[in-house]
Amino acid sequence: MGRDYLSELKTMTPKEMQALSGELREKIVSAVSKNGGHLASNLGMVEATIALHHVFDSPHDKIIFDVGHQSYAHKILTGREDEFDTLRTFGGVSGFPSRRESEHDVLTEGHSGTSVSSAIGIATANKMQGNDGYAIAVIGDGSLTNGMVYEALNNCNDKDLRLIIIVNDNEMSISKNVGGLPKYLSNIRISRSYFRFKRGAKRGIGILPLLGKPFVKLFALMKNAFRRLFLKSTMFEDLGLNYIGPVDGNNIKKLVTVLTEAKKREMPTVIHIRTKKGLGYLPAEKEPSRYHGVCPFDKDVGVISEPRESYSSFVGATLTEMADEDEKICAITAAMADGTGLNIFQEKHPDRFFDVGIAEEHALTFGAGLSVSGLKPVVALYSTFAQRVYDQLLHDVSLQNLPLTLLLDRCGLVEGDGITHQGIFDYPIFTAVPNAKIYSPETYEELKNVLSVSISSDTLDVIRYPKGAYSEYECACEMIYDSEACLAYSKNISEAKKVIITYGRMTRIANEVIKGLDSDTALIKLVRIFPFDKEKLKSLTNGKELVYIIDEGYVNGGVGEKISAILSHQRVHVHAIEGFVEHGLLSDLYSACKFTRDDIISAIKNLK
Amino acid sequence: MGRDYLSELKTMTPKEMQALSGELREKIVSAVSKNGGHLASNLGMVEATIALHHVFDSPHDKIIFDVGHQSYAHKILTGREDEFDTLRTFGGVSGFPSRRESEHDVLTEGHSGTSVSSAIGIATANKMQGNDGYAIAVIGDGSLTNGMVYEALNNCNDKDLRLIIIVNDNEMSISKNVGGLPKYLSNIRISRSYFRFKRGAKRGIGILPLLGKPFVKLFALMKNAFRRLFLKSTMFEDLGLNYIGPVDGNNIKKLVTVLTEAKKREMPTVIHIRTKKGLGYLPAEKEPSRYHGVCPFDKDVGVISEPRESYSSFVGATLTEMADEDEKICAITAAMADGTGLNIFQEKHPDRFFDVGIAEEHALTFGAGLSVSGLKPVVALYSTFAQRVYDQLLHDVSLQNLPLTLLLDRCGLVEGDGITHQGIFDYPIFTAVPNAKIYSPETYEELKNVLSVSISSDTLDVIRYPKGAYSEYECACEMIYDSEACLAYSKNISEAKKVIITYGRMTRIANEVIKGLDSDTALIKLVRIFPFDKEKLKSLTNGKELVYIIDEGYVNGGVGEKISAILSHQRVHVHAIEGFVEHGLLSDLYSACKFTRDDIISAIKNLK
Repeated sequence: MGRDYLSELKTMTPKEMQALSGELREKIVSAVSKNGGHLASNLGMVEATIALHHVFDSPHDKIIFDVGHQSYAHKILTGREDEFDTLRTFGGVSGFPSRRESEHDVLTEGHSGTSVSSAIGIATANKMQGNDGYAIAVIGDGSLTNGMVYEALNNCNDKDLRLIIIVNDNEMSISKNVGGLPKYLSNIRISRSYFRFKRGAKRGIGILPLLGKPFVKLFALMKNAFRRLFLKSTMFEDLGLNYIGPVDGNNIKKLVTVLTEAKKREMPTVIHIRTKKGLGYLPAEKEPSRYHGVCPFDKDVGVISEPRESYSSFVGATLTEMADEDEKICAITAAMADGTGLNIFQEKHPDRFFDVGIAEEHALTFGAGLSVSGLKPVVALYSTFAQRVYDQLLHDVSLQNLPLTLLLDRCGLVEGDGITHQGIFDYPIFTAVPNAKIYSPETYEELKNVLSVSISSDTLDVIRYPKGAYSEYECACEMIYDSEACLAYSKNISEAKKVIITYGRMTRIANEVIKGLDSDTALIKLVRIFPFDKEKLKSLTNGKELVYIIDEGYVNGGVGEKISAILSHQRVHVHAIEGFVEHGLLSDLYSACKFTRDDIISAIKNLK
Repeated sequence: MGRDYLSELKTMTPKEMQALSGELREKIVSAVSKNGGHLASNLGMVEATIALHHVFDSPHDKIIFDVGHQSYAHKILTGREDEFDTLRTFGGVSGFPSRRESEHDVLTEGHSGTSVSSAIGIATANKMQGNDGYAIAVIGDGSLTNGMVYEALNNCNDKDLRLIIIVNDNEMSISKNVGGLPKYLSNIRISRSYFRFKRGAKRGIGILPLLGKPFVKLFALMKNAFRRLFLKSTMFEDLGLNYIGPVDGNNIKKLVTVLTEAKKREMPTVIHIRTKKGLGYLPAEKEPSRYHGVCPFDKDVGVISEPRESYSSFVGATLTEMADEDEKICAITAAMADGTGLNIFQEKHPDRFFDVGIAEEHALTFGAGLSVSGLKPVVALYSTFAQRVYDQLLHDVSLQNLPLTLLLDRCGLVEGDGITHQGIFDYPIFTAVPNAKIYSPETYEELKNVLSVSISSDTLDVIRYPKGAYSEYECACEMIYDSEACLAYSKNISEAKKVIITYGRMTRIANEVIKGLDSDTALIKLVRIFPFDKEKLKSLTNGKELVYIIDEGYVNGGVGEKISAILSHQRVHVHAIEGFVEHGLLSDLYSACKFTRDDIISAIKNLK
């Protein structure tokens, strides 16, 4: 047990709390520099987190961090100080809120735009059950580009809810924000600043309407129309919500005043705070984008930028080259230009590059609009976020018979981010979309080939690849490539007694397994993982003692299950992922899922 | 070929067009009273549709109707007059836009909130390719409660797009709108009316800023600040869009003026029109909700309200009774209180009923918030719209280990609405959600039982049922119910040579099939369709010549495929749905999918 911050905070002065924020920053920089993680957003949120825990009583009051990548200070303050340097390691503290970890983490999180919906649910349940606790959603301006938030804001119209929505405006999502809303927030900032100037009032007047001081009383006497003349009503007020702000979100004294006032109101209130991303660690202040999510680094030096080769960067470069030749190719991403490697495309072809914000649904349907007009849209998403586009794929792409290429980055197990970011649930939705084809290339050459095929195809094509890079290795046996069936198989397959079927980066491990087994095991590597060439698979495996499928995806509805349904009259064993997988290094995750060479060898031997 | 309305319209006067609107209304009332369909919204949109085709040139200019249930006048004007009385019949005119039907239907549609995204895509492609056509999204205020629209509006910030968004404000979605936005639209209406009153100007001044008349020039000279004093900037303007309105959407002259002006601007513009739902057919004007979607009726009498028994009404009544006893039960729907039968619950327990608007994503995550606070949320959606909640089920419900019951109405083939409304794609997503259970009861008694089980369960439970009612029939053989495996099987199954496995309402047809075959065929009826009791299924089918699975769902990832993967070493034939299915009577759809008794009998005989 470390310090009982929650009790201490109740009696701390703003000055003491401001001092505490420096200590928390040190701990955050120390853990992140050691294990990697989200830095800039966490540094910006330190004061607001302290102020929240000063004014509210967690877990009676529920604080929900949207996405949750900015919850590090909250974790330290709520009993996880001592183990905080295990951040993101296997069995250690998660980089996102986790119900398993603490009663102060209301929900296990990692996706954007859900906090307001959850908070309304909790506030409503509190009201219904006579519980006087508050529900507080803390949401960044980047997440405000997500449509779910708006659906939720449209439903905050029960005036009796103890609901507070903190809009953390740092003028960034992961990189610079896109779209009309960020401009709008900036307009609020400007118009309110303008008012401050006009009235010659001291700083803080932006929150004047709630302070009970003489100046405010005067102000309150002014005609409402006059107020609206300069302080025009905000979009939040248009939707029927209280609005307070903007407030300096790195000033604890002001935050405490505003939060205390909002708490008194006992009704749904939006508090617009402005924070500085990266505050307190100079390199991150200067380059907040680079310090959004980082790998381990020397904190005295800072992150050294070395463009690293990866599937993402290869895709970015290859697509850019293809677009040099074909001006119909367009690229779309949902706030992940850097992560998906499309920043390369963006630089070279800015007119054909579209970052739509954290808006995966819109990304796909916007892409469908380009496609129906004869262009060749390529949408790049992370696997886990593509869980949001099933209806758009069915209704807006497949039903229209439109060609579209969907690049799926971070497929399979993903190091570091953990349970909400594993790319293991996407496959079942794509296989249920009529006429979709799904590829899972292993090598860069295969990736280039399927990208070229997909862009010229007249259907929806999905290309899956993992985080990280490919590197060469020695195969266990000579492979024959069947371009029709889009798979490769061991030259000696007809003599083999057992066959391993796998795809993507698991092929490397399958090769190690085969080297470690007797020479009676052949390999089939799938490059297209849906639909299958059923006859080819049947003929290659016919009469074998065992077909062992290694599937780096969730077991239900996965590649293994589909092949089992094809290879009836055959002994098939599926080795896939049984459920949610927590955070850790890739090697830890592979151990947890029994995907190591030794695990698989002994599993196969035990099946004898 | 009927009249060439598109050419005629170009030279028609507003008066002639206003007369034409009466003719179109007659045709619409006639076809809908004959075949059923969407009435009130189509009647409201007649003038706007005429005005659009007068000012714009379809298909060069692309008109996209959000959802598309209001596109009847458009269909008549674009070459489908003669066959319009085949509306919603098999092989006839679809009740929604259909690319197959006409080049004037830009996209095949039926889901809400997609039009702005598609239109931005088309407008962007037009700009990139030097095409001077416009993209026009026509969207109702009900659809504005959907988050995708907001993601799209946030992305309209290319000032060079020839993009027009018509917000059709009829103060209703299917029933009365919910949430802050409708109130907000209403505020716009009021504030602009107020301005009209203050200035004593004639009607139409709401659109003054765009008219080149002396009065307007005077107005334009007034300080912008003064304008904003009364005509405060709208949310659309806040997002960086042009805004014109509100405009009387049933006055062709005004509409033509406004549309012509918007066209000239050559930039993204929102036109806010007000229409009267049901206009021109008195019963529909009086009760627009009842005339939203109707069955065939006598147009001289109007729709006679007869509450009909159905799975939906049974669920509504049963859930209401359960909620009488258990005050933790809450009901949530997404703009479908009537369709899902929850209106019964709403009346009895208004404090525990939540209609969140057309916002399925929010519905689930809001439900998760209730659940984490100890309540028992029951969310009722249509199967086809549940395609939007995969990520919410995974991330916000299952990952948290939260109990929640999802009622899925309109499962399987759905009469009338057609290709976008078939409930055949939901199953694969639920089976890919860890720990979810899926039920497909056939009888009301089974439905009541699984509802009771689901509400007390500590997991995510999904209950699927079709549109329409259950009625008793004579079984082909005595059935034994296994409550553990949650399935029923023929008493004589051990002697049978063949087994049919099915679920839900297909059980009735399976019984007819068995009666029509030799007595060597047994039946397994699944009540829980995921997960399966694998050992029970294996033992019941062991040694049979044939296992024939009738699956009223899409073939990939469906019940049939899952059972095939379980019953290896067994001859299994899956009879499921191969792809998208168009509109028609249920009997037509069954014929199209070869789901009739005779089809199945001959299919089984051919497999011998």
